Amino acid sequence: MDYVYGPGRNHLFVPGPVNIPEQVIRAMNRNNEDYRSPAIPAMTRTLLEDVKKIFKTTSGTPFLIPTTGTGAWESALTNTLSPGDRIVSFLIGQFSLLWIDQQQRLNFNVDVVESDWGQGANLEVLASKLAADSAHTIKAICIVHNETATGVTNNLAAVRKILDHYQHPALFLVDGVSSICALDFRMDEWGIDVALTGSQKALSLPTGMGIVCASPKALEASKTAKSLRVFFDWKDYLKFYKMGTFWPYTPSIQLLYGLRTALDLIFEEGLDNVIARHGRLAKATRQSYGWKNDIVISFILKCIIYFVYHFVSTPSTLVPVPLALLKKRIAVEAWGLKNCTQKEEWYSDTVTAVVVPPYIDSSEIVKRGWQRYNLSLGLGLNKVAGKVFRIGHLGNLNELQLLGCLAGVEMVLKDVGYPVKLGSGVGAACAFLQNTTPLIASRI
Amino acid sequence: MDYVYGPGRNHLFVPGPVNIPEQVIRAMNRNNEDYRSPAIPAMTRTLLEDVKKIFKTTSGTPFLIPTTGTGAWESALTNTLSPGDRIVSFLIGQFSLLWIDQQQRLNFNVDVVESDWGQGANLEVLASKLAADSAHTIKAICIVHNETATGVTNNLAAVRKILDHYQHPALFLVDGVSSICALDFRMDEWGIDVALTGSQKALSLPTGMGIVCASPKALEASKTAKSLRVFFDWKDYLKFYKMGTFWPYTPSIQLLYGLRTALDLIFEEGLDNVIARHGRLAKATRQSYGWKNDIVISFILKCIIYFVYHFVSTPSTLVPVPLALLKKRIAVEAWGLKNCTQKEEWYSDTVTAVVVPPYIDSSEIVKRGWQRYNLSLGLGLNKVAGKVFRIGHLGNLNELQLLGCLAGVEMVLKDVGYPVKLGSGVGAACAFLQNTTPLIASRI
Amino acid sequence: MDYVYGPGRNHLFVPGPVNIPEQVIRAMNRNNEDYRSPAIPAMTRTLLEDVKKIFKTTSGTPFLIPTTGTGAWESALTNTLSPGDRIVSFLIGQFSLLWIDQQQRLNFNVDVVESDWGQGANLEVLASKLAADSAHTIKAICIVHNETATGVTNNLAAVRKILDHYQHPALFLVDGVSSICALDFRMDEWGIDVALTGSQKALSLPTGMGIVCASPKALEASKTAKSLRVFFDWKDYLKFYKMGTFWPYTPSIQLLYGLRTALDLIFEEGLDNVIARHGRLAKATRQSYGWKNDIVISFILKCIIYFVYHFVSTPSTLVPVPLALLKKRIAVEAWGLKNCTQKEEWYSDTVTAVVVPPYIDSSEIVKRGWQRYNLSLGLGLNKVAGKVFRIGHLGNLNELQLLGCLAGVEMVLKDVGYPVKLGSGVGAACAFLQNTTPLIASRI
Amino acid sequence: MDYVYGPGRNHLFVPGPVNIPEQVIRAMNRNNEDYRSPAIPAMTRTLLEDVKKIFKTTSGTPFLIPTTGTGAWESALTNTLSPGDRIVSFLIGQFSLLWIDQQQRLNFNVDVVESDWGQGANLEVLASKLAADSAHTIKAICIVHNETATGVTNNLAAVRKILDHYQHPALFLVDGVSSICALDFRMDEWGIDVALTGSQKALSLPTGMGIVCASPKALEASKTAKSLRVFFDWKDYLKFYKMGTFWPYTPSIQLLYGLRTALDLIFEEGLDNVIARHGRLAKATRQSYGWKNDIVISFILKCIIYFVYHFVSTPSTLVPVPLALLKKRIAVEAWGLKNCTQKEEWYSDTVTAVVVPPYIDSSEIVKRGWQRYNLSLGLGLNKVAGKVFRIGHLGNLNELQLLGCLAGVEMVLKDVGYPVKLGSGVGAACAFLQNTTPLIASRI
Repeated sequence: MDYVYGPGRNHLFVPGPVNIPEQVIRAMNRNNEDYRSPAIPAMTRTLLEDVKKIFKTTSGTPFLIPTTGTGAWESALTNTLSPGDRIVSFLIGQFSLLWIDQQQRLNFNVDVVESDWGQGANLEVLASKLAADSAHTIKAICIVHNETATGVTNNLAAVRKILDHYQHPALFLVDGVSSICALDFRMDEWGIDVALTGSQKALSLPTGMGIVCASPKALEASKTAKSLRVFFDWKDYLKFYKMGTFWPYTPSIQLLYGLRTALDLIFEEGLDNVIARHGRLAKATRQSYGWKNDIVISFILKCIIYFVYHFVSTPSTLVPVPLALLKKRIAVEAWGLKNCTQKEEWYSDTVTAVVVPPYIDSSEIVKRGWQRYNLSLGLGLNKVAGKVFRIGHLGNLNELQLLGCLAGVEMVLKDVGYPVKLGSGVGAACAFLQNTTPLIASRI
Repeated sequence: MDYVYGPGRNHLFVPGPVNIPEQVIRAMNRNNEDYRSPAIPAMTRTLLEDVKKIFKTTSGTPFLIPTTGTGAWESALTNTLSPGDRIVSFLIGQFSLLWIDQQQRLNFNVDVVESDWGQGANLEVLASKLAADSAHTIKAICIVHNETATGVTNNLAAVRKILDHYQHPALFLVDGVSSICALDFRMDEWGIDVALTGSQKALSLPTGMGIVCASPKALEASKTAKSLRVFFDWKDYLKFYKMGTFWPYTPSIQLLYGLRTALDLIFEEGLDNVIARHGRLAKATRQSYGWKNDIVISFILKCIIYFVYHFVSTPSTLVPVPLALLKKRIAVEAWGLKNCTQKEEWYSDTVTAVVVPPYIDSSEIVKRGWQRYNLSLGLGLNKVAGKVFRIGHLGNLNELQLLGCLAGVEMVLKDVGYPVKLGSGVGAACAFLQNTTPLIASRI
Repeated sequence: MDYVYGPGRNHLFVPGPVNIPEQVIRAMNRNNEDYRSPAIPAMTRTLLEDVKKIFKTTSGTPFLIPTTGTGAWESALTNTLSPGDRIVSFLIGQFSLLWIDQQQRLNFNVDVVESDWGQGANLEVLASKLAADSAHTIKAICIVHNETATGVTNNLAAVRKILDHYQHPALFLVDGVSSICALDFRMDEWGIDVALTGSQKALSLPTGMGIVCASPKALEASKTAKSLRVFFDWKDYLKFYKMGTFWPYTPSIQLLYGLRTALDLIFEEGLDNVIARHGRLAKATRQSYGWKNDIVISFILKCIIYFVYHFVSTPSTLVPVPLALLKKRIAVEAWGLKNCTQKEEWYSDTVTAVVVPPYIDSSEIVKRGWQRYNLSLGLGLNKVAGKVFRIGHLGNLNELQLLGCLAGVEMVLKDVGYPVKLGSGVGAACAFLQNTTPLIASRI
Repeated sequence: MDYVYGPGRNHLFVPGPVNIPEQVIRAMNRNNEDYRSPAIPAMTRTLLEDVKKIFKTTSGTPFLIPTTGTGAWESALTNTLSPGDRIVSFLIGQFSLLWIDQQQRLNFNVDVVESDWGQGANLEVLASKLAADSAHTIKAICIVHNETATGVTNNLAAVRKILDHYQHPALFLVDGVSSICALDFRMDEWGIDVALTGSQKALSLPTGMGIVCASPKALEASKTAKSLRVFFDWKDYLKFYKMGTFWPYTPSIQLLYGLRTALDLIFEEGLDNVIARHGRLAKATRQSYGWKNDIVISFILKCIIYFVYHFVSTPSTLVPVPLALLKKRIAVEAWGLKNCTQKEEWYSDTVTAVVVPPYIDSSEIVKRGWQRYNLSLGLGLNKVAGKVFRIGHLGNLNELQLLGCLAGVEMVLKDVGYPVKLGSGVGAACAFLQNTTPLIASRI
């Protein structure tokens, strides 16, 4: 079992499944229980109530389905649509591609709006399609909030604005697999009809629970949707909700207790603080890969800084802020690589896809990280296979874990022949984190 | 979380989810891992190979799907059949009912063969239907091997014999949810085309893995089956099997390690020994509920026995066997209740549904067991609600656990006003077990 | 590791180490922590406060020492006494013997007061010794509250009464290893100077923490006690208590969290309820081993009962109480064995030592239980080796666990050639428990 | 319990208790067991045999005592010496101080040989004392192999050489608490008579097991040693070893299984590889704190390097080695702090005590690390309180964990006002590790 044993902890930085907090591992360390005893329904009631908070919905109805994200997709589609229905769907990377593949195999009439991988959803095309659809033949808009393959975050508020602008009644279905609980997500405010995520992503649980949340409009649609479905049918859940026993079939007792604890941890930290932490770690990551000095300018600026620093600062006083900023700006000799994401507006705060130079195969980076440093990075997928590696920075994670990962990436880059200055990316990330990390609230 | 805390262990005797062995709980006590690293595929390869052994198949192809039994049903049906296909399906209790409901909602043309609850599948009707179907309009036979609601085990070998007799090419689909790993099950020998089970049953894992095994003929059928499917589509699995990465979407790392350990434990004990243990515990259970002396006959026979015993036996010699047997037969003043299962040939070795007298509500028994003795029994479902309670005796379980349960049932029976002689059922079960339990192989 | 693997749970009924509740196992399932961070002292503060409640003391000072009961003994002695000090110590079984051995090896002048094994401490001898000791040469009375080897509980209140009667200033040192948290124990009320227990007994934790509680008088004595000690020296603990860091050397982080949870569970159930539960399970155990009908009387009485029962009772009405009692008295055909404890006043509510007939070797019973039924019973020790086996019924345990154990004992007795009527002991225990077990408070 | 909750993993870098590998946490996640069943002695036998390997002894006798390092000290002393015996003991830091305090309180006649904190044992004084002791009044030499407070490793081979040179029969007692399993340690080759360690150090277990290993000469000495002892008496262990039951009192079942797994992991990695890994991580740590450029020299050299680099290197070719080395030498702008250890020969490979500038209180660093970055560092103790902080780099640990810690230290240093260049220490450590870290054997 442990034939791949290496000393120390594995550094898990794939964008899912992510690190499970010790508290959750503990909570799940248990025997099975009778799910028809009063205990499990009582706990389920709290879970359904609390899980709505992570979607930021009060009117939605959540379903905790024993499945994965792929199953959650299927649940969203088959409960709200009928075969042949026209839907608009955005293709911007591997996971949106897979969802579209599912949509097509389920016999929907899919209007694919494709962007280059690394770009966000093309909302102008959406606008024009809606503008042209006064007959309301478009039944649903399907969009991946955060494309995990390229690290691109789409603007959901903008989608809603366009829908409202054209007063179009299409359902708004959102894959929030790598966003919910990590990125700003507002189901009610943005008028999302079905949102979904998976337990193994920002909730930091094991795989096995697909969480789908339906708006009243989506529930209404499910009454007439003709897609065949049984396992994924919301109707069976709703029947058991009504009876107060909640489960049409056996749930994972362990995942229920795990979810209870995961939600407790999120609420203790504060959902908005959790989201802010994701933003902070993502920005730190982006400090590390990016900037590399032009050598000459750097050299000259450094001369100036060094001399100023030498005469002005003494160890006991901090360098005046403007100087410090300038210094930081220059001192940062980060890796000099590019983000797969092409514009800052799309930068993902849960996963960063870093583009490697053409003479390097990014899958070598992933392999090397695992073989030498017990580091797990994400591969490039499909169109970007070999071209990017991915750093997942979502879930229950903190600053030093990320910095350990970045240090590992630096060494791996050097291992595979990329001339990185060791410490440069970590230093850049540190500079950002040292300025922005709050004290841990419970320890002040 | 533990607002239902009671001292000591919970006695879990519902017919699923069942007790998880400590070894498996330990194996699952872990963080997530990257399922794309070499470690997980390497382990998966051993799992797929070994899981075939519990189906007793060498030619089958197993799928480990992140779902429940209900999802496994759907996988079996949608991969092999097309909407409108005629299937013969046996209704003998709640779980066969639910499967038939699924079959109908998936738009198959279901020929339901109903029996009274407590009886096995009516195979004569099957024979006549097959005899009449020279056009081979029947595409599949769907049968639940062990009906968990009534404790009825169907004769799969007989089904195969009938199919062979009529040389009928219908697919043979079997729900083995509460049988596989516990009852005699022979996929290849009995020519089963799709067999399925769930992790939380005799495998003694948490819920969350539906295990489906397809014969070559079933795989062939899946190429032309027109039922829409994506999440449950075998094709995606087969594609990843070919690539050696095995997983079309994220599996539960914890369940994989759990399954590895569960299989190791089963192989250590020996699959046939595991099945024999289930037979032994089931027979012991049947000793306890059943027989009750007519008081007068019992009284007279006891007089004889006691006197014989008094003069013949000495403490250091065991009573001669024939006498012992007679004595046992009489000494057993068990509960005097009936099995829901109406003939011995259908007695289930994984779950026993005990019929209570009409003046008792069986759900009171279940409630009382949980409230007073930390005992979890199975409710009566649907047609037999209030009329039976169920003792699940499947999974990783031993003699004294069962006897503790039976002692609890006796006290509960008395609690709810049934005049049981305390100790009678346990004594009867003990008498059987004390004669039949082997030494634990590893401790001799 | 698991070369002794057998299916199902081990039934642990040795009188220590005892079953750990799942909640505690979970709480201990964790990494190490820095014990000098603010977290551990803050938790320790609550532990020291709460652990006093299980001693029923407000004035005592507890020490949580990384050691076993043997080390706790040494801590009690060396901190309060000087070499050559005269102490009175009661020898009534193996554990009092071992403590006396320790006392002698630590160079105290031990006045041993011996009783037959199976009897309690001879307090008359104590009275006469105190009466004769007007010079107060006796510095301490050492007594084991509950002798684990014979299942004998001494009367501590009586010891205090005698000390008070003679106004004797001797220190009162009590081994509460198999009593505290399970039997009625009142440190302050009974004027106990040092009381001690071990984590693996009624607290239901792993082995590794010796808990010693010192009265103000004992603390005072420690200032002048000349026995050499360092590891066990209270002085070092007190120094760190004062500093608020609490630990003179590294504690087990896991045991601290385990203790926190164990205390929480005890307080949730209520300490007095925990003690009452121990009394109830012990009485049930004593029902099972004891009484065996004279066959003839039993026979006649049964005739009467049966006929009365037949005509008087109907299934829906309960048999009138007096009749029920008579019936129970007779129906109980328990094992017909004797308790090693010779008088009811000494019966232990945490462990029962059952005497086997001379033609049986009790160690065969223990061996057989383990080899065939995965049952762990206690051996007879020293003088009673081969003569008794012991059932430990202490710690976090409930009715059905005990009944499973008793059923196992019955089968083992039969295995080794003792003519027990199977079900008789369990039935007797059930009859008691079914009348006395309260509903689980949290489930009503 | 988790009122100090912070997101993500705690970064545990105190020099004990250290990180427990997941495999060991899993192995310890279990119920108690009867330690008198055949299973525990059988496992104990393998533990005693295998634990000798980590001492590199074949003739020694190990004792696994339920205690801490302090108790292990007491066991070593009281079993081999008599009150009044003259011993030579080296005071070089807080832990040697505490051991000497114990020696004095146990009434030995201690010849203290003191060094400045930060220096190793003064072996010249030892030589002169032995030279003068032709009467062999010195009964034992007591030395701490690795002083955890200052990060100083003593030269045990040199001690043996001196003893041999004077043919002195004194016992050679060694505290290997923070060395065994991490540093080069050779009990037999160096003629050590008693060596000891604690479970929570390099073995990476929870606290609670003191492991003491005695040479035949030490065992012989124990027969006549007059120090009073019971709990720590080897005699009781030896008696139970002979009987094959091994335990004079209850061991921690969990720690036994934990030790089994810890040893298995060590043997899988290879003990010498474990030791080499400690050396590598320690050297990396020393790269980070140490060197800081003179600004002017650095500036000029950098100019040269940069220009050479610019014209000579291309991305696809690596910079020629001599240039790379020069570049690295200069590029390293590490923290510019000093090691508390004053000479390289004493550098510890398990803990590094870093001296902070006089204007910083090192305890602020430790506090800040915990409050802001969930980082646990070691405090300065006693004479060096406030002056040093300590990085423990022992136990089951890998490169990226250490680098995360070093990144944290950098940020903390900046937080408390020390002008560190962020990334400099990590970069220096990376440069060393990227050159020296082997591939993980099981993953090649």
